[in-house]
Amino acid sequence: MRAPDELRSLVEGYLLSLDLSDELGDLQDSMRYALSGGGKRIRPVLCLATAEAIGCPPERALPAAAALELVHSFSLVHDDLPALDDDAERRGRPSTHIQWGEAVAILAGDALFGEAVRLALSYPSPAVARELITATQGMIGGQYLDIKGSGDLTELHRLKTGRLFTAAIGLALEVAEVPTSAQAPWRAFAEELGLLFQLVDDLLDRDGYVLVHGVEETRHLADEAAARAQAKLATIDADTSVLQEIVASLVARTS
Amino acid sequence: MRAPDELRSLVEGYLLSLDLSDELGDLQDSMRYALSGGGKRIRPVLCLATAEAIGCPPERALPAAAALELVHSFSLVHDDLPALDDDAERRGRPSTHIQWGEAVAILAGDALFGEAVRLALSYPSPAVARELITATQGMIGGQYLDIKGSGDLTELHRLKTGRLFTAAIGLALEVAEVPTSAQAPWRAFAEELGLLFQLVDDLLDRDGYVLVHGVEETRHLADEAAARAQAKLATIDADTSVLQEIVASLVARTS
Repeated sequence: MRAPDELRSLVEGYLLSLDLSDELGDLQDSMRYALSGGGKRIRPVLCLATAEAIGCPPERALPAAAALELVHSFSLVHDDLPALDDDAERRGRPSTHIQWGEAVAILAGDALFGEAVRLALSYPSPAVARELITATQGMIGGQYLDIKGSGDLTELHRLKTGRLFTAAIGLALEVAEVPTSAQAPWRAFAEELGLLFQLVDDLLDRDGYVLVHGVEETRHLADEAAARAQAKLATIDADTSVLQEIVASLVARTS
Repeated sequence: MRAPDELRSLVEGYLLSLDLSDELGDLQDSMRYALSGGGKRIRPVLCLATAEAIGCPPERALPAAAALELVHSFSLVHDDLPALDDDAERRGRPSTHIQWGEAVAILAGDALFGEAVRLALSYPSPAVARELITATQGMIGGQYLDIKGSGDLTELHRLKTGRLFTAAIGLALEVAEVPTSAQAPWRAFAEELGLLFQLVDDLLDRDGYVLVHGVEETRHLADEAAARAQAKLATIDADTSVLQEIVASLVARTS
């Protein structure tokens, strides 16, 4: 079983050498810029760790894991646009529309989404791409709730953050061709991850849940979500040690 | 064989009753607005007519044809944005970002793209979605050349306009499961359509090719493209009468 850091290196290497559609031409430069901004690659690492826990070589799950990271990247590029969050910086660098202009950023986001689908379609079964697209539509629904100022924070985050985390596990299940009848415990685990990530995110940024519940209660909710995630993992008949480690690091993270 | 108008009614009916992903919530309203702006539905009609010429019921090609129209619609919504073409009107109505705001328009475009992929993934074979995504990436590459002010008008239109026209035929081939070895004459026909459409478009709008070649020469080029398209159709061993009629109406259109 490979450690999270090894899986992350695998993802980084794959993304660095990723072939993009030729017909995108120089638009590729802005896409690679958006993709190379660092980040913890939590979603693809979760996907690879799940694949390995199931007994599927992580390498086989790499296109699916990368597809998920591309969807995440596309969502950030569009989310940062002036009409949406109007963020000039992303992870300490100019955001894509600042660096490349707004028109290019809109097209780069579109093309990242398209490349993600292309990667997911590299598998023989369309189930992988179906998992990706269902999650993406949910995530977009969450972005819509966000700009509309929805009062339902739980539903907003279940969609905006949660759907891609859930897909990290779901994509691994589909790549490994785990029959639907055997997916339930994995998917139950997956459902806890988005909330856990979001709660800790809000603790670090002092917003979202913290503004509603306060720091102490939000920390308590995060610990509970982590405990539920670990409990769900414990019901799965597989070596989930690396996934346990990832959950522990998610709740303890400081950046 | 159904006439182009009957096929168009089929498309309109299908689009009107189209189920969109539940999790998109009220974002669906802006997507339906963008989709319902009329237009001639040339791409999906071409797709259905090709399916029927091959001997595949047009109804079976409807999800693929609609997927293509959704990609076209997504591209218009993003193309009309202030950062790109900054068009306040589309077919005599306020464009999507004027009607719903810029943030919603960006997300509506993203979600239309996603729904298009979802429709293409409703087929058992991933080949349909692969055809769609390859064409979409080419189209985005064309939009990029357009905003960058590429000097190569032919390459720009081969991508920006041509790729979705080519896909109208390619999607029908994949839905009907025509083996690759038998696709060549159909794809040769498909290659002529985008140029033909663009030349006539520029004649109607007095821009693009007309600015480079003048009206008379552009009309001549359009007639030549139509003649080549008809000649390619003549090499195909199938009842292509409806496709011949569509080509004739493309070159003679006045709106």
